[in-house]
Amino acid sequence: MKNFKLELSYDGTRYNGWQKLGNTDNTIQYKVEKVLSQILGQKTEVSASGRTDAGVHARKQICSFRAETELPCEVILEQMRRYLPEDIGAMRLDTVPPDFHARYCCTGKTYVYRIRSSEQPEVFERRYVYSYPEKLNITEMRRAAALLCGTHDYAAFTSLKKSKKSTVRTVTELRIDERDGELRITASGDGFLYNMVRILVGTLLEVGTGARTADSMPEIVESRLRENAGFTVPAKGLILTDVRYD
Amino acid sequence: MKNFKLELSYDGTRYNGWQKLGNTDNTIQYKVEKVLSQILGQKTEVSASGRTDAGVHARKQICSFRAETELPCEVILEQMRRYLPEDIGAMRLDTVPPDFHARYCCTGKTYVYRIRSSEQPEVFERRYVYSYPEKLNITEMRRAAALLCGTHDYAAFTSLKKSKKSTVRTVTELRIDERDGELRITASGDGFLYNMVRILVGTLLEVGTGARTADSMPEIVESRLRENAGFTVPAKGLILTDVRYD
Repeated sequence: MKNFKLELSYDGTRYNGWQKLGNTDNTIQYKVEKVLSQILGQKTEVSASGRTDAGVHARKQICSFRAETELPCEVILEQMRRYLPEDIGAMRLDTVPPDFHARYCCTGKTYVYRIRSSEQPEVFERRYVYSYPEKLNITEMRRAAALLCGTHDYAAFTSLKKSKKSTVRTVTELRIDERDGELRITASGDGFLYNMVRILVGTLLEVGTGARTADSMPEIVESRLRENAGFTVPAKGLILTDVRYD
Repeated sequence: MKNFKLELSYDGTRYNGWQKLGNTDNTIQYKVEKVLSQILGQKTEVSASGRTDAGVHARKQICSFRAETELPCEVILEQMRRYLPEDIGAMRLDTVPPDFHARYCCTGKTYVYRIRSSEQPEVFERRYVYSYPEKLNITEMRRAAALLCGTHDYAAFTSLKKSKKSTVRTVTELRIDERDGELRITASGDGFLYNMVRILVGTLLEVGTGARTADSMPEIVESRLRENAGFTVPAKGLILTDVRYD
């Protein structure tokens, strides 16, 4: 049995997210498993570093799967490129030691959220950029972002109903870059809760417009209540750009 | 009667090109005229610097139209942005002297053709890049490109059936840039015949693979016969990037 590490890139626009669901074929996991099972001639289950939600993109998503095969990686990769839809790209494939698992071994991730803050329409990147043409106070947003970093219980920043799982995460970076009428918010951390990046971005935008103050950030975190944080920005602006392993 | 100069940007993927056609609404001209006629409360005809073919994109297309209106440009622009589909962007609107006409006054255009020459899939730009993963001799392509520039009768480089109109054009630049597995061919000139840029690019690709020699370029031009030139590359890689007026 070989263990494989697969790097994918995908445009999430027309999918119901990564994870296979009961009665829909329209997920990235389903598409990838179907193609791999055909190429390898055996039912193949693929684990990703994490699930991306419906409409979220990935420039770099890491997956792993096990298979009994003599096919070299180049051949599998070439076949994947032939049979995967053009909005799912198989970028790289390697064999890895048996203890590698894309999800359990993952130690860090980076997401980027793109916001069009100018009035000018964005015709070519419109599927990947959220249009929010409001006047934003970037300095105040940066101050709020710094207050949201660190190791905290981020329960206020997830749409997931209460569960027994820990909602403590470490956010190492929440950087705001501005260029050509576009704002990019880069979020890095050891992991993110369901909808967490999108709620962090929504909260920062509300600071940008003046609806909230940067100073109110610690209170929101401490409250652990979703209703105290900002709105959930749309999926289309979000892209997973890096997945790290030690 | 005021005369307006309008800058548009569009993703041509789902349109039958610029020009209004008998029985289809699915052209960019149709969409723009419909929205403008509604905003201005009068039938408005819009002329572009030139027609782009089905599937061809424009980062900068210039149009002109005349209208009897007191609405300021900002208001018209804002309304256009509200009512145009998101793959057609109204970038800029100005009033211009009465003798300006987007097509007749145009003195130069630049197109860029994008080719993915590496095996790596391009997930995010796939609508705008033609995938042609062949080993290409760029030096030879550049030599051929230089031989195709100048003032020539480009009848061999158009799909248009013979007509009385002149097929002489001046190509001032045919530049080939390579970066990150992508080739960009930039074509500038006083104007281009129907399909001309796409046939020039197809011919250059055939030089790149060794199917033709750079030295054969002058013969092709002199023959004035379409069948002597290369294939027509797909529309999706082509984008109009600049339109010039003296």
